[in-house]
Amino acid sequence: MTADFFNRVETDTEKDFVVQVTQESVLGKSIIRRDSIAKATGKAQYIADISRPNMLYGKILFSDRPHARIVEIDASEALAMPGVACVITSGDAPEKLYGLYIFDRLVFAKGKVRHVGEPVAAVAAISPKIAEKALKRIRVTYEDLPALLSLDEALADDAPVLHPDLDSYSGIHEYIKYKNVCMDAEVSSGDVDQGFAEADFIVENTYRLKPMNQAALEPHGCLAELDPFGKLTVWTSNQQVSVCHTELSRALDMPMTDIRVIATTLGGGFGGKLKSMFEPIVGLLALKTGKPVKMILTREEVFTATHSRSEYLIHMKTGVKKDGTLVAREADILNDVGAYSDHAVGTMTHAMTYAQGPYHIPNVRSRGRSVYTNNPDWGCMRGYGGLQITFAYESQMDEIAAHLGMDPVALRMKNLCEEGQPYVTGQPLRNVTIRQTMEAALNASGYHQKKGKLGPNRGIGVANSILNSGFLSSSAICRLNEDGTLSIMTAVVDLGTGTHTVFRQVAAEALSMPVEQIMVSAQDSDNSPYDTGSIASRTTMDGGNAVRLACEDIRKQLIEIAAASLKCAEEDVVLEQGEAYNRENPAERRTYQALVGESLFVRHGPIIGRGSTLLRSPFEREVGKGYAERPAGTFTFGTHIAEVEVDPETGRTTLLNYTACHDVGRLIHPQGFEGQVEGGLVQGIGYGLFEELLVEGGAIKNPSFVDYRIPTALDIPPITTLAVEEYEELGPFGAKGFAEQPMMAPMPAIANAIYDAVGIRMTTIPITLERLYHSIHTHE
Amino acid sequence: MTADFFNRVETDTEKDFVVQVTQESVLGKSIIRRDSIAKATGKAQYIADISRPNMLYGKILFSDRPHARIVEIDASEALAMPGVACVITSGDAPEKLYGLYIFDRLVFAKGKVRHVGEPVAAVAAISPKIAEKALKRIRVTYEDLPALLSLDEALADDAPVLHPDLDSYSGIHEYIKYKNVCMDAEVSSGDVDQGFAEADFIVENTYRLKPMNQAALEPHGCLAELDPFGKLTVWTSNQQVSVCHTELSRALDMPMTDIRVIATTLGGGFGGKLKSMFEPIVGLLALKTGKPVKMILTREEVFTATHSRSEYLIHMKTGVKKDGTLVAREADILNDVGAYSDHAVGTMTHAMTYAQGPYHIPNVRSRGRSVYTNNPDWGCMRGYGGLQITFAYESQMDEIAAHLGMDPVALRMKNLCEEGQPYVTGQPLRNVTIRQTMEAALNASGYHQKKGKLGPNRGIGVANSILNSGFLSSSAICRLNEDGTLSIMTAVVDLGTGTHTVFRQVAAEALSMPVEQIMVSAQDSDNSPYDTGSIASRTTMDGGNAVRLACEDIRKQLIEIAAASLKCAEEDVVLEQGEAYNRENPAERRTYQALVGESLFVRHGPIIGRGSTLLRSPFEREVGKGYAERPAGTFTFGTHIAEVEVDPETGRTTLLNYTACHDVGRLIHPQGFEGQVEGGLVQGIGYGLFEELLVEGGAIKNPSFVDYRIPTALDIPPITTLAVEEYEELGPFGAKGFAEQPMMAPMPAIANAIYDAVGIRMTTIPITLERLYHSIHTHE
Repeated sequence: MTADFFNRVETDTEKDFVVQVTQESVLGKSIIRRDSIAKATGKAQYIADISRPNMLYGKILFSDRPHARIVEIDASEALAMPGVACVITSGDAPEKLYGLYIFDRLVFAKGKVRHVGEPVAAVAAISPKIAEKALKRIRVTYEDLPALLSLDEALADDAPVLHPDLDSYSGIHEYIKYKNVCMDAEVSSGDVDQGFAEADFIVENTYRLKPMNQAALEPHGCLAELDPFGKLTVWTSNQQVSVCHTELSRALDMPMTDIRVIATTLGGGFGGKLKSMFEPIVGLLALKTGKPVKMILTREEVFTATHSRSEYLIHMKTGVKKDGTLVAREADILNDVGAYSDHAVGTMTHAMTYAQGPYHIPNVRSRGRSVYTNNPDWGCMRGYGGLQITFAYESQMDEIAAHLGMDPVALRMKNLCEEGQPYVTGQPLRNVTIRQTMEAALNASGYHQKKGKLGPNRGIGVANSILNSGFLSSSAICRLNEDGTLSIMTAVVDLGTGTHTVFRQVAAEALSMPVEQIMVSAQDSDNSPYDTGSIASRTTMDGGNAVRLACEDIRKQLIEIAAASLKCAEEDVVLEQGEAYNRENPAERRTYQALVGESLFVRHGPIIGRGSTLLRSPFEREVGKGYAERPAGTFTFGTHIAEVEVDPETGRTTLLNYTACHDVGRLIHPQGFEGQVEGGLVQGIGYGLFEELLVEGGAIKNPSFVDYRIPTALDIPPITTLAVEEYEELGPFGAKGFAEQPMMAPMPAIANAIYDAVGIRMTTIPITLERLYHSIHTHE
Repeated sequence: MTADFFNRVETDTEKDFVVQVTQESVLGKSIIRRDSIAKATGKAQYIADISRPNMLYGKILFSDRPHARIVEIDASEALAMPGVACVITSGDAPEKLYGLYIFDRLVFAKGKVRHVGEPVAAVAAISPKIAEKALKRIRVTYEDLPALLSLDEALADDAPVLHPDLDSYSGIHEYIKYKNVCMDAEVSSGDVDQGFAEADFIVENTYRLKPMNQAALEPHGCLAELDPFGKLTVWTSNQQVSVCHTELSRALDMPMTDIRVIATTLGGGFGGKLKSMFEPIVGLLALKTGKPVKMILTREEVFTATHSRSEYLIHMKTGVKKDGTLVAREADILNDVGAYSDHAVGTMTHAMTYAQGPYHIPNVRSRGRSVYTNNPDWGCMRGYGGLQITFAYESQMDEIAAHLGMDPVALRMKNLCEEGQPYVTGQPLRNVTIRQTMEAALNASGYHQKKGKLGPNRGIGVANSILNSGFLSSSAICRLNEDGTLSIMTAVVDLGTGTHTVFRQVAAEALSMPVEQIMVSAQDSDNSPYDTGSIASRTTMDGGNAVRLACEDIRKQLIEIAAASLKCAEEDVVLEQGEAYNRENPAERRTYQALVGESLFVRHGPIIGRGSTLLRSPFEREVGKGYAERPAGTFTFGTHIAEVEVDPETGRTTLLNYTACHDVGRLIHPQGFEGQVEGGLVQGIGYGLFEELLVEGGAIKNPSFVDYRIPTALDIPPITTLAVEEYEELGPFGAKGFAEQPMMAPMPAIANAIYDAVGIRMTTIPITLERLYHSIHTHE
């Protein structure tokens, strides 16, 4: 969809609309991305394109058992092969547990394997082919143990305990954990029992979302090299440079000063390239051999051994008044984290928090349990828990509407949350725009004209969503160079979303200088300050804020120097287009270049700005220790409307039209926004209709793009993209993050549209044609 | 000389001696350098060891004419050669004059060549051999012009003017410039005419110092690569990352944000690898071909085409009272800068300033003229003008002593400068230790016991020196990592002197943490803040100060967080060995790691410190515009004593013993100090006795280590190294820079010892055996 199709929506009050768009502002303009041509022409270099002299190739031997004791690893045959430089196993790695929330993992399986795809050994050889052959010559003798291959099995009273030392594991948060439950947490508001007592009826459903792979087109890869001075440099396709750096240090038991992590151009992440994954193993191979070692995963390995989105099982119960007022909700959420916790546990904190959706429900209780199994090492993906619960609450809204005989839109409108209402976590909602996004989407889609009039087997479905915006720590250093250009130092990688372009725009605005004179430096842990990374829809809001603050720090310095140079008061200095002048005498100007020169050679030193930001997450009040003294982030809202046609003969669902409206606070780069919306909903359509990792005996059975289908252009309907701009005080120039949100609503919007089309309620995602066919024909 | 031979000298007052050496301090300890093992075992990687995939090799066609019009450049034959990727000439380079003080040069000669060794064209080819062959196929048609091959020729009234547009050249400083004189400047104090009138006699001499090559064992090299996003990365063996970055931007007419300069491990610099040299040409080759291009100079090219120390001609006239009191001095200094100015002009500002040496002379006038000729493109070297004038004033001190029949030491002692006296520039002298360095050196060398008693053809000579310490802009960013380790970001490269080790020690002291937990990050313009670089004895004093200030910034933040965490007043927080505690309750401690965690996840962001420093140079009051509001740097002092034996049959001078004493403010790394002293005086011995670039017809005639001799171990006598530690308030923990100084005194010390041995006064450096033989036999 080209920019011509792009529409902005005016919000209903004058005050709310885009603030301070001066004629010169670069905000709100789709400036050309610096990376676009190289990427479009295939010239961009990804990790697979990078090599170092005398490089070896790494390959990992993954467990093919879901649960087994390792009796013996015999690598002698592999080691004897010409071209094999080394074989390493757990004995070569530090015995230091590490992880994200719970330190429950080692670099290699030690003593036993707990899932298919767990690293058991690794090889470095002079070619990938030899490394692969060598893997086959490593003889691992296993003694199988009973495997827990489902939530039910893992939660059974007599289930074997996968992590007997769970109690003693350290980590960041102190969740309740017991047996195979690595987190049992609750968030609540009001009096839920009382709420249900007041309800006229209760709707209760169970929803299931199957595992999904992020399917970034670039497979995971990294390259590690030990320099002659003992420092390990790791180039990696990773969304979190700083976190990867910290975790590598922990996993390898080396000081952070001896490790350097450099992010390469990413070909997508979507939550699949977080923290460290195989970086510690490749690092160990480089340390062992003294040579550079590169490892690029095959597509099959990406599917089987990386951290895909985990399976969720959500039981949701809602108490409703006859007039449609929601009075109570209870959610009981389970997810299968696989054999180790990490982000799969993280997603649960989000899923719990969003159980009430963008609605006012006075009494809410949400319990989340994350469960260890011997399934693969699940992780997270775009939407991070919030997506799963959105499917549940938005499907249930339509079930409630059906129960009431009410239009689903009317039910939603009646219950929409309002400005100032406390969310389940106690955080009051601010800048609530859900009514605007709904109205805009309804208008643009022609919902009211179409509803009930689309003809046989056609239907229209609506889904709202709410997402927190602003989350964790970001920081940036900006430097005004001697030629007056600006370098932005940030650990935030650009996943391909245009984040760096947004940073340049924010910096241009904050410093009143031409955006062409601004560039983002390399993401390199040697120099980039700490940032939580390109996750959680946070780069514009948090990373952008850090850049803004660093630029404001520079702005202050510029004004001080300019005032001295122009011999005027600081308050009379005007900065404009890279120049400073006294407002009383605009003719006499100082370029930023000249001011940098004065600073460097007359005043004291370079003009360098620091910025950092830390916003609480909305769920921290109830879960974990939290950052009590910090301001909470805010929320953003969105509405999707899907039009479908179902073929009852085959169960195939075809999307006819799609409308997506999101509140972005303030639009910085319209094309970037549009790309995010389209990308997210294409992924949502994939998850809604066909993307599913099939797990059998703990192993992924469809690890290829032949058997795991992602959407093609033919699966995508015409899309109308709409933005609501409600100035967000906490964001950079009013902007806020929303990037995961476009993927949150498609599944329920599609499910609701299918129900509208054929009267079948689908509660399992994806709604494959087999599932829908089966439901239609069971139902009839 | 091993550390066992190392002696410290106690200065004469208690207060002056090393301040605050606590038991825990890491200052004053020769901790192991992180780079030592890799360098000693040959594993360190220099620019020549670095390669990039699909790399081409660059080669420059240098002019072989001293002055000629370029009639035509025909590269067609070269371009037709298989393996040749491109040939570039001035037409491919921006027409943008650039330079250091005066913007008088282009990347390639345009229209005419002005010296032998001026770049005329460059080739990129698939091998260095093919590139070399291609050079020979480039046909340049020259039309010779009259060449100015000496100062006399260039200063003649009817000399052709080499830069007719000199008046219009811009640049940093506004010197007086006319005809072939690109700088004519003066510094003076008192009333010189009156001073001479009061003198009982006047001594007048002319001294000459011939051109000298820096002879760093690593030849110059760089590698440039254009990334797919349009950014040019240049890896280079360069002493000035920031300056190279700025200059590349100017020479290539590209914004600094599009250029990245990364310093590689340096194998010596000594002033030979400053600013940009061939980086713009290699950059242009990379831009033209779109491929990485590397160029490593041959030794011959290093000799003929890089910026060697220029020739100096010093006329010095001193008025003296009968009792030996110096009352007036006039110095008329000329140097041959070659065809373009740059650092050769810079050295003159230093030479002028130091004409009075470390003595009190009430009336001084020093005039310096830098002159364009068609000799090679001279630059600077360790000692930077100060060295040249030291030879003059210390030789003349002995001539005055001889005139008076006074012991040269007694004459010096009588005239030593004293605390608080204004220097010729008006700057009052502080922490004057010349008496201490003299006494220490005299005692250690046994001067008084030996003088006049060494036997035939043996002699002993003394030379003092004074050097400014603290000069121009330095800055650093330090970051306390999440594991409590510290990363230092600086653009200061470690030339091999141990600068980075000193920075680690300074940071450890400033932050009260273990030095093992501190590392210096890469020197990379993408991230390292501006620094004038590893020149001018400035890294410890200025770079070290920037690091100290950045660490103090961190210290403040640590104390603030620790006070909040320990619930005590900030003034009660004690930092010690990487931990914080309340002095009232030392048992409860917070590691820096924990405090970084609190800062990142509770407070606001990472703990990052900024530090920058700018000290005026001592000569800026008179020369150039200066930095009037900044404090001036300080001075450091040193005394050398050489014992020689001369063989009158051959003119060969053999050094028997050598004593060197230097004031270092505070000794940070004794072995590093010792290495600097020994390295400097070995270079001084080389220059004193045999290192000379022979120039004929504007061309270097001895461009190899066969014909240009540098000292071997056999040329070096036993050395006694002594330090005086006079706490310098402006320096980091009392330290100050001195690194050029060990090279400043050897030439006059040797000349004075030769005079003591055989009564022959040598006024031209080097005192080759041919020159000495000739003088002895002319004299006799």
